[in-house]
Amino acid sequence: MYRMYELIKKKRDKKELTSEEIKWIINGYTKGEIPDYQVSALLMAIYFNSLNDRELYEWTNAMIKTGDVIDLSSIKLPKIDKHSTGGVGDKTSFILAPIAAACGIVVPMVSGRGLGHTGGTLDKLESIPGIKTEISNKDFVSILQKHRICLIGQTKNLVPADKKLYALRDVTGTVESIQLICSSIMSKKISEGIDGLVLDVKVGLGAFMKTMKDARSLALTIVNLGKKMNKKVVALITDMNQPLGQNIGNALELIECFDILKGKVVNDLSNLSCELAAHMLVLGKVADNIQTARSKVANSIVSGEALIKMKEMIEAQGGDPCVVDDYTRLPQAKHTKIFIAKQKGIIQEINAEEVGLAAMSLGAGREKVDSKIDHAVGFVLLKKVGDRVNKGDPLLVIHYNDGERIKEVLESVQFRLDRAFKIDKKPVRPPKLIKEIIR
Amino acid sequence: MYRMYELIKKKRDKKELTSEEIKWIINGYTKGEIPDYQVSALLMAIYFNSLNDRELYEWTNAMIKTGDVIDLSSIKLPKIDKHSTGGVGDKTSFILAPIAAACGIVVPMVSGRGLGHTGGTLDKLESIPGIKTEISNKDFVSILQKHRICLIGQTKNLVPADKKLYALRDVTGTVESIQLICSSIMSKKISEGIDGLVLDVKVGLGAFMKTMKDARSLALTIVNLGKKMNKKVVALITDMNQPLGQNIGNALELIECFDILKGKVVNDLSNLSCELAAHMLVLGKVADNIQTARSKVANSIVSGEALIKMKEMIEAQGGDPCVVDDYTRLPQAKHTKIFIAKQKGIIQEINAEEVGLAAMSLGAGREKVDSKIDHAVGFVLLKKVGDRVNKGDPLLVIHYNDGERIKEVLESVQFRLDRAFKIDKKPVRPPKLIKEIIR
Repeated sequence: MYRMYELIKKKRDKKELTSEEIKWIINGYTKGEIPDYQVSALLMAIYFNSLNDRELYEWTNAMIKTGDVIDLSSIKLPKIDKHSTGGVGDKTSFILAPIAAACGIVVPMVSGRGLGHTGGTLDKLESIPGIKTEISNKDFVSILQKHRICLIGQTKNLVPADKKLYALRDVTGTVESIQLICSSIMSKKISEGIDGLVLDVKVGLGAFMKTMKDARSLALTIVNLGKKMNKKVVALITDMNQPLGQNIGNALELIECFDILKGKVVNDLSNLSCELAAHMLVLGKVADNIQTARSKVANSIVSGEALIKMKEMIEAQGGDPCVVDDYTRLPQAKHTKIFIAKQKGIIQEINAEEVGLAAMSLGAGREKVDSKIDHAVGFVLLKKVGDRVNKGDPLLVIHYNDGERIKEVLESVQFRLDRAFKIDKKPVRPPKLIKEIIR
Repeated sequence: MYRMYELIKKKRDKKELTSEEIKWIINGYTKGEIPDYQVSALLMAIYFNSLNDRELYEWTNAMIKTGDVIDLSSIKLPKIDKHSTGGVGDKTSFILAPIAAACGIVVPMVSGRGLGHTGGTLDKLESIPGIKTEISNKDFVSILQKHRICLIGQTKNLVPADKKLYALRDVTGTVESIQLICSSIMSKKISEGIDGLVLDVKVGLGAFMKTMKDARSLALTIVNLGKKMNKKVVALITDMNQPLGQNIGNALELIECFDILKGKVVNDLSNLSCELAAHMLVLGKVADNIQTARSKVANSIVSGEALIKMKEMIEAQGGDPCVVDDYTRLPQAKHTKIFIAKQKGIIQEINAEEVGLAAMSLGAGREKVDSKIDHAVGFVLLKKVGDRVNKGDPLLVIHYNDGERIKEVLESVQFRLDRAFKIDKKPVRPPKLIKEIIR
C-alpha cells in the first residue's frame, strides 16, 4: 500500500505523515511486516523533525489500537492514575495510590520494572512476600471494584506496539524524543482505562530531563495530547537533583512509605506524594479545589484510612499485609556501613544519578534487563541538601549483603557516593520541590 | 569494546566520532556483528548532523579496508577514472574512456547497473553480443596493461562495506547524505587503484542533485576528500535538465557513442565527453594544460585512434568488435513510432527525469533490482531545448518491441513524454552544459 522508505523520506524532509500512513506504519511494525531497520531510521527522523500535535495524536491512537484497552466502564467512580518520568528514591505511588483510593478515587496502576539508575515500582512492590503483580485483566477489574486500588505489571496485550517500539528505541538512540516518550506513556495509560492522569515530570541531575526547558516541553506535549484524547491531564514539574525521601532500595523504600502513611515521617517525599494525590482528587472531582483536596489527603493519613487501603491492596494481591506493621517480614540486609562526611560544611548537592548508580551496583537495581535484584540492599540518607555537617558525621547508611566481589562493590559504591555529595561552606537553600504546574 | 547505541547518540548529539569508533562501526557492520537497525539509525543521524572532513576521511578509509584494493602498481602510466552521479542519456564513459586510453591514460573503470530513471554503464555495454563484464582482478590488470582500457562490474570483494551500506541506505531514506554519497564513490574508485578522478556532478531536473547548492556541496566535499586521500580530483558540475545527447536506451546509446568516436556526430554529448577526457589528460599529466589536452582529444578522434581503442576493449572483453561498424549486430527494436509536437513554438524544457522514467517503463531500465532489461528499446531525440518546432513535427522516435500490455505501456510512455516536453512561444537559450569546475 505504501513504501516505507518513502514515508521515512517524508518525515526526514519535514513533511507531515497522514493518518493512514501512521496507522500503516504502527500496524505493519507490530505485525512484523515492516523491518526494524526501516523503523529505526524513521524514529531517528522523528527525533530530529518531531511529530506535530495531529501526528502525535494519531501515532498514539494507532499504538493503543494494536492491543486491548482494559474495560473499566463497570466502575462508576473516577479512575485516575499517576505517572512519573522516573527518579532516584521516587516511590510516591505507594503513598498517593492508597491516599487517593481512601478518598474515593479508583487507581488502576500499571507499572514497569527499573533499568539503570532509577528503580521500578514493580520491583519495590515485589519486596513484599507473596505479592503477585501478574494479574489477569478480569482480576484487576474485580480488585479495583472492591478496593479501588490495584498495582500490576504490564499485561501481555497492553499496547504491543509500545513493547516493540520501546525495545527498538532503547538500542538505537531514539529514546529521547519528546513525542515518542509521550506516545509511549499515554498509550499505556489510556489502555488502562483511566479518565485522568497526574504526570510527575522529574527534572534535574538524576532525571531523564536535565533542563527545565525539556521538562516543560514534555509536560506541555503530554497535556495537549491528553486534551486531544479527551483525558484530564495535569503535569507537575518536580525536582530530581537529590534523591527523593530518605530511603533508596526496594524494601527500604516501602518502609519509608509505610512510615509516611502512618504519619510518622514528614519530608520532601511525603509532601510531594500528598500534593500529587491532591491533584488526583481534583481531576477526579472528589474535591472542588486543591485546598479541599489537600485537607482530604491529610485526613486520610490521620484517620488511618490510607494505611488500611495499603493493607487491603497487599492482601488482595496475595501479599502478607503484616509487613506494614512488622518490617522484619520484609527482606533485610545482613550488614550496614556508615558513610561519613569527609569535611565540614553545608551539603550543596547530592547527585541523584550517582546515588542511583551506586544503589544499582549494590544490587538494588538492574544494569541489564535480565539482572537479578536484591530487594534488601540500599541506602538510608541521614542528611539532605542544605543540611550542615561536621567532618566525620554520618551522611548515609549502606545496607548490603555478602556476595562475590562485595569488597570491590563497596569500594566503588563509596567512590560514587564521594562524588555524589558536594560539601562547601557557602549557605544553600534546599531545592524547590514543585517547580511548575502545567495543565 | 564500544556500545553502538552510545555511538548513535554521539552522532545524534552532534559530537565527533573517533577514528577507532568509525573503524569499529564499519568493520562490525560488514562482518554482520552490528545489526541493520542500529546502523540505519546512525545513517539517519549522519544525514542530519553530517560527518566532518576528518570523520569522512576515516569513514571512507575504513570502508576501503573491508575489501581488496586492486594493485595497479605494475602499470607505470597514470591511472585516471571518471565517475558521474548519473543522468538520463549519460553515456560519456564510452567516449572519454577510449579517447583517454588513446592519449596515454590508463582507464580502470568499474561501473554499476542502472536503477530507476537513469541507465547503468554496465547495462549499456552488455548490449554488445558476447561481452563479459565479470572479469577477475588478474585479467582486469592484464587487459589494462595491454590496452589501457577495461570496463567491468564490481568484483566480489570490492568494498564489501559499500555493498551492505548502499543496500541499507536505499531502503531507509538515507541515500541523500552528501558525505555518505562521497564515501561510497571514493571508496570504490580508490579500490580500483586510481591516481586521479574526474567527477561529473549532474545537476537539474533529471539528476540526483536538483540544485546548484547541493551539487556544489557534493563537488567540494569529494574534492576535499580526494586531497586527504592523496588523489587528484576535479569535479565538473554539468547540466542534466534535458537528456544528454540524442539517444536513450542501451544499444541506441552505444550507437551514438560510436558515431561520435567516428567524428560523425558533434553535439552536447560529444562536447561534454571531450571536455571530461581533457581533464583526465591534465590530471594524468599527459597534457600540460587544458588547451593542449583538448587538441590531443580532438586528434584522437580525427586519427581514428579512439575508435580503435573502443574496438580493442570490446574484443579484449570477449565482445564482437564488428558492432562498431555494423550496428545491425546490436539488438534492434522491431518497431518505431514517431512522437510529434502538439503545438508550434520553441522547446523550453525536456524534463530528463520524465524521459528517463518513460524509457524505464518501455523496458530500457530497471524498476526493481531484479527487473530484466530490453537492450534494444529506447528513444532517439530529434529536437533539443531551444529548437523551434511546428505543430506535427517529429520530436522523438520511440523504438519498441512487442510484448504483453505493449499498448498500455506505449500510452503511458506518450503520456510521460507529453509532460516532459514544454513548448512555448518565448525564446529560450539551450542550458549551459558545464556550469562550474571545482578542484
